[in-house]
Amino acid sequence: MTLRFALLGAGRIGHVHAKAVAGNPDASLVAVADAFPDAANKLIASYGGARRSIDDIAAARDIDAVLICTPTNTHADLIEKFARSGKAIFCEKPIDLSVARVKSCLDVVATENATLMIGFNRRFDPHFLAMKAAIDQGKIGEIEMINIISRDPGAPPPSYIESSGGIFKDMSIHDFDMARFLLGEEIETVIASASVLVDPAIGKLGDYDSANVILTTASGKQCAISNSRRASYGYDQRIEVHGSKGLVSAENQREFGIEIATADGYTKPPLFDFFMTRYLAAYAAEISAFVAHLSDKTSASPSGADGLKALIIAEAVLLSVKEGRAVKIGEIGGKAK
Amino acid sequence: MTLRFALLGAGRIGHVHAKAVAGNPDASLVAVADAFPDAANKLIASYGGARRSIDDIAAARDIDAVLICTPTNTHADLIEKFARSGKAIFCEKPIDLSVARVKSCLDVVATENATLMIGFNRRFDPHFLAMKAAIDQGKIGEIEMINIISRDPGAPPPSYIESSGGIFKDMSIHDFDMARFLLGEEIETVIASASVLVDPAIGKLGDYDSANVILTTASGKQCAISNSRRASYGYDQRIEVHGSKGLVSAENQREFGIEIATADGYTKPPLFDFFMTRYLAAYAAEISAFVAHLSDKTSASPSGADGLKALIIAEAVLLSVKEGRAVKIGEIGGKAK
Amino acid sequence: MTLRFALLGAGRIGHVHAKAVAGNPDASLVAVADAFPDAANKLIASYGGARRSIDDIAAARDIDAVLICTPTNTHADLIEKFARSGKAIFCEKPIDLSVARVKSCLDVVATENATLMIGFNRRFDPHFLAMKAAIDQGKIGEIEMINIISRDPGAPPPSYIESSGGIFKDMSIHDFDMARFLLGEEIETVIASASVLVDPAIGKLGDYDSANVILTTASGKQCAISNSRRASYGYDQRIEVHGSKGLVSAENQREFGIEIATADGYTKPPLFDFFMTRYLAAYAAEISAFVAHLSDKTSASPSGADGLKALIIAEAVLLSVKEGRAVKIGEIGGKAK
Amino acid sequence: MTLRFALLGAGRIGHVHAKAVAGNPDASLVAVADAFPDAANKLIASYGGARRSIDDIAAARDIDAVLICTPTNTHADLIEKFARSGKAIFCEKPIDLSVARVKSCLDVVATENATLMIGFNRRFDPHFLAMKAAIDQGKIGEIEMINIISRDPGAPPPSYIESSGGIFKDMSIHDFDMARFLLGEEIETVIASASVLVDPAIGKLGDYDSANVILTTASGKQCAISNSRRASYGYDQRIEVHGSKGLVSAENQREFGIEIATADGYTKPPLFDFFMTRYLAAYAAEISAFVAHLSDKTSASPSGADGLKALIIAEAVLLSVKEGRAVKIGEIGGKAK
Repeated sequence: MTLRFALLGAGRIGHVHAKAVAGNPDASLVAVADAFPDAANKLIASYGGARRSIDDIAAARDIDAVLICTPTNTHADLIEKFARSGKAIFCEKPIDLSVARVKSCLDVVATENATLMIGFNRRFDPHFLAMKAAIDQGKIGEIEMINIISRDPGAPPPSYIESSGGIFKDMSIHDFDMARFLLGEEIETVIASASVLVDPAIGKLGDYDSANVILTTASGKQCAISNSRRASYGYDQRIEVHGSKGLVSAENQREFGIEIATADGYTKPPLFDFFMTRYLAAYAAEISAFVAHLSDKTSASPSGADGLKALIIAEAVLLSVKEGRAVKIGEIGGKAK
Repeated sequence: MTLRFALLGAGRIGHVHAKAVAGNPDASLVAVADAFPDAANKLIASYGGARRSIDDIAAARDIDAVLICTPTNTHADLIEKFARSGKAIFCEKPIDLSVARVKSCLDVVATENATLMIGFNRRFDPHFLAMKAAIDQGKIGEIEMINIISRDPGAPPPSYIESSGGIFKDMSIHDFDMARFLLGEEIETVIASASVLVDPAIGKLGDYDSANVILTTASGKQCAISNSRRASYGYDQRIEVHGSKGLVSAENQREFGIEIATADGYTKPPLFDFFMTRYLAAYAAEISAFVAHLSDKTSASPSGADGLKALIIAEAVLLSVKEGRAVKIGEIGGKAK
Repeated sequence: MTLRFALLGAGRIGHVHAKAVAGNPDASLVAVADAFPDAANKLIASYGGARRSIDDIAAARDIDAVLICTPTNTHADLIEKFARSGKAIFCEKPIDLSVARVKSCLDVVATENATLMIGFNRRFDPHFLAMKAAIDQGKIGEIEMINIISRDPGAPPPSYIESSGGIFKDMSIHDFDMARFLLGEEIETVIASASVLVDPAIGKLGDYDSANVILTTASGKQCAISNSRRASYGYDQRIEVHGSKGLVSAENQREFGIEIATADGYTKPPLFDFFMTRYLAAYAAEISAFVAHLSDKTSASPSGADGLKALIIAEAVLLSVKEGRAVKIGEIGGKAK
Repeated sequence: MTLRFALLGAGRIGHVHAKAVAGNPDASLVAVADAFPDAANKLIASYGGARRSIDDIAAARDIDAVLICTPTNTHADLIEKFARSGKAIFCEKPIDLSVARVKSCLDVVATENATLMIGFNRRFDPHFLAMKAAIDQGKIGEIEMINIISRDPGAPPPSYIESSGGIFKDMSIHDFDMARFLLGEEIETVIASASVLVDPAIGKLGDYDSANVILTTASGKQCAISNSRRASYGYDQRIEVHGSKGLVSAENQREFGIEIATADGYTKPPLFDFFMTRYLAAYAAEISAFVAHLSDKTSASPSGADGLKALIIAEAVLLSVKEGRAVKIGEIGGKAK
């Protein structure tokens, strides 16, 4: 049975998900909503579907699921609306920039018994999954330490930064989710340092562009995350997990596996340029997983609670930077349910 | 406009091409023919189309192109049939095991002014194309020497070997085509050595499973090819091109970009297991190129002449092994037109 | 002119330095002092020299320089003694575990105008020097972030831990020095997290075996350090420096540059097993640099002040772990001179 | 006991061996002979010894062994002279350019029961030895195919080429020896192709600068060798051995293990520039092995017979190129004893 999707928000990430839906034999794109008709039509031209209003989509009988790819400040309202109208929901991270708002939204999801999956795409990257499989098979023994290096190729414009929630809620939140995904244990304490080194405009907005974060679990496992908004050499996405018996690492990926050797040295091409190319397979697998969750009636994963927990870590990290101290996760509006 | 395809031969390589057609937005699979109805139906279940006879397909008005994936000994007849019935033709290599038969077949193609493209999939591999682009951009200067290592993961059964035409026409032919593709100059002389090291049954059939070949052009450029029917570590597919200013190499590819370090060392996973996985992107690009040739009315490439030239090299190499001497390409039934 | 050395302390690191002296055409090992005659004699058998008492060495006219490789708690006294007796001094890190004691010791060195070089061997590693040269040539633009992964192959016995000063003064101190060496700017603030994951006995002694540290300079440059007392796969010594225009990384080194591919994957040998092998060239270059400093009458580098500054960072890091907060370097007994 | 060496020939390779002797605790350089006093004195200034005539050395009681590093056309006469005067002999390859002359020379060595070791330095490279150990431990099963890529960084001047014996006797001879060393079975047949692509002056002298060679054993094992006199990217020295269960490869080596990533890609430094740097450890190990052979009274290896066999392969390869045919080793003046 084909799952019929409506896509809300025909921007950059909307295109990414529309492509994944179009390429999935068990899914089809039925409707697209965007405040800008041109944007919706352009996406429709590539991936199909018809332009419809959000209210139409909520009321529609021929739509099973929605993909929420609108601006962050609309996510929670839309999740509630579609939870109430009985649609399965896939929502881009973050659910909201406010922990309290996320909690009230998840209450509605729970009340309505709605299916909600959050777009932490990296969990579906085949390389990271191979890494997780190696860990689960015991190949590195007990996890002791995780090192994540995660750098965007270039800083977004100040206009984007302004409504992004800042580097931790916008960018590092993916790394916080990966830390939880891989550690198999919740984060208890965070400590972090952040600077403005890439673009002073980012600093003027009260945000940071360069940061290092240390997450620690109750048993003392640690995850060190290194973030930058700039990497001249491509989209730098590395994870390594060090355990009692060994280390598993996931290397950066590049489009072309060639090397040119000259008198200047041996050169491999730069990395994939950004998430649309680097995580192409992950986005496809993510939509497949969502479709499978609905078919199997299993709980969607990553769940709304996963979204909340990553957001709480982001809040804690921000507080650590501001106050120059270790922050307990429990300080941030109580533990996630 | 969507190009409507009929697929002839629903075996392993038929599935590979059907997948490429199904995933191509400008192509659709309309018909499938196979002597075994079950094979056809199984392919149809995955990639669409309806079962039809070869004669129906030849007569059909709703079919633009055929993909010939049947046994080699039927290729030339089918090419002639569909050339005469006005279909565009994509045919798996080799066209035939006999140089004379290939020539007579290509005469029909020429007379009918038919479009014929030969399935040398490696020309479409993104990594090899990036290598070719680097060469064309002058990054390594003038080409002097090419080294190809090309090993299958395991030897096929004797039944396959028997009708394969032998290692040079069946397996090395891809390497001969890549040599021509990259050298930018025709092969003039070949010299080769071959052994039976993997499976004595292969030797009993008069074939070889391990071979080294040196191809030389008129200007003295050389291409050394190393083939084996067995590689425990996966499908070993490497090319490097050495020039006056540098070297460009295309590395082996693997599914998972991870590395596990333990007291036993640092281990990366084995390579892709065979052509269906290693050359997945190449097969898709190959069908796209065929579609594009038809849309643009450009000559299909690699052409029938490319198929003939690679076959002539294979004949020359076999003669070199048998007679223990350098063989001129011109000795093999005259130069390809 | 050959520089005549006395070696104090014929233990493991004493052997490393004796080997470097023996292999240096401009140096010779004249005297060896150790409380255990057998230890001294064993070293003498391999690298030459005669057994003498520390007082003899201090008074000797035929000795130009001393190599202090004795237990840490004797370093400061010996430095003062040999400063007063006019010998050039090379001392293993750390000078002392107490910042105050190091300062008083360095006062004596200054008063006596003695030459003192501290054994931060990694500054002399050819790979790290090549990295530094690339940075100095502007290849990566302005430094923004450094990531150091530094793991010992296995934890030392509790008896060693007990007098080591703890992981930060004993092990991480090398990384703190490299951070200063590469950053080109002093550390202003530190934050850190530490756990006991490898050996509970280490925890019982109040020490840690797994730690992550973030050092920040006044301009916001950051250095993230990841330490562990255990790495099953060898002596893990990696540094990468991320700048505005690029990244330079120094890879791990191994003894044998081979790779074995089988059905289980592609395996390279484990890393060098520890500092004696990994930093063999660095130790030789370190002694050469010391000899060159004396010949050229240049100030020895790394200096006593470098030793003090690294120790102060270690104290600050320990305080950060204990108090769960960012610690300013200035809190630790004032800035180093 | 220290072995006392005389060095004959104070050129480039003489310096390499003098350095190895000087760095060996069981060897000392006592005498140096060279037709050019300045050359001898320069070497003596670096590595010790006194200038003496060849006749003095032959008659000397304080000299145990000679290192023959003179021009090739003097090797055989010197070997005979020192065999007769009772010195142990280490001689650079090749013994002579004529198979007949080598045979008569080895007859004298046999009659005098002299110790003779030939300078095939690559057998002592630690990476190649690790590769050989892996093979001997059965890690790749039965050897089926060897691929050697061996390229010099740049072509020597015509004056050198003129007396070199040509690419096969001068350069490829090392690869022929490695093939024999690794295969564990004698070569039976050779075929080859050679061109002039680097320097027309080399062609004018009747030599080649680019060649591919295939060596085959009686059991059908093959070794493919790819040679060039030019490699812009350094001294290209790679070997891989493919067996029934796997592949072992020895990678190229470089001085600095760093990588610089920028918008232009990821770049590692060029390779070691030539044999003096690439095989530094091998040259030291070679002299150690020679010293050990003399101490243990074991037969020196590689022996004079090894030198002869490699030369015979070179002759056979040259004949194959000239006549465009497979050449049996037995055609070249009979099998080596």
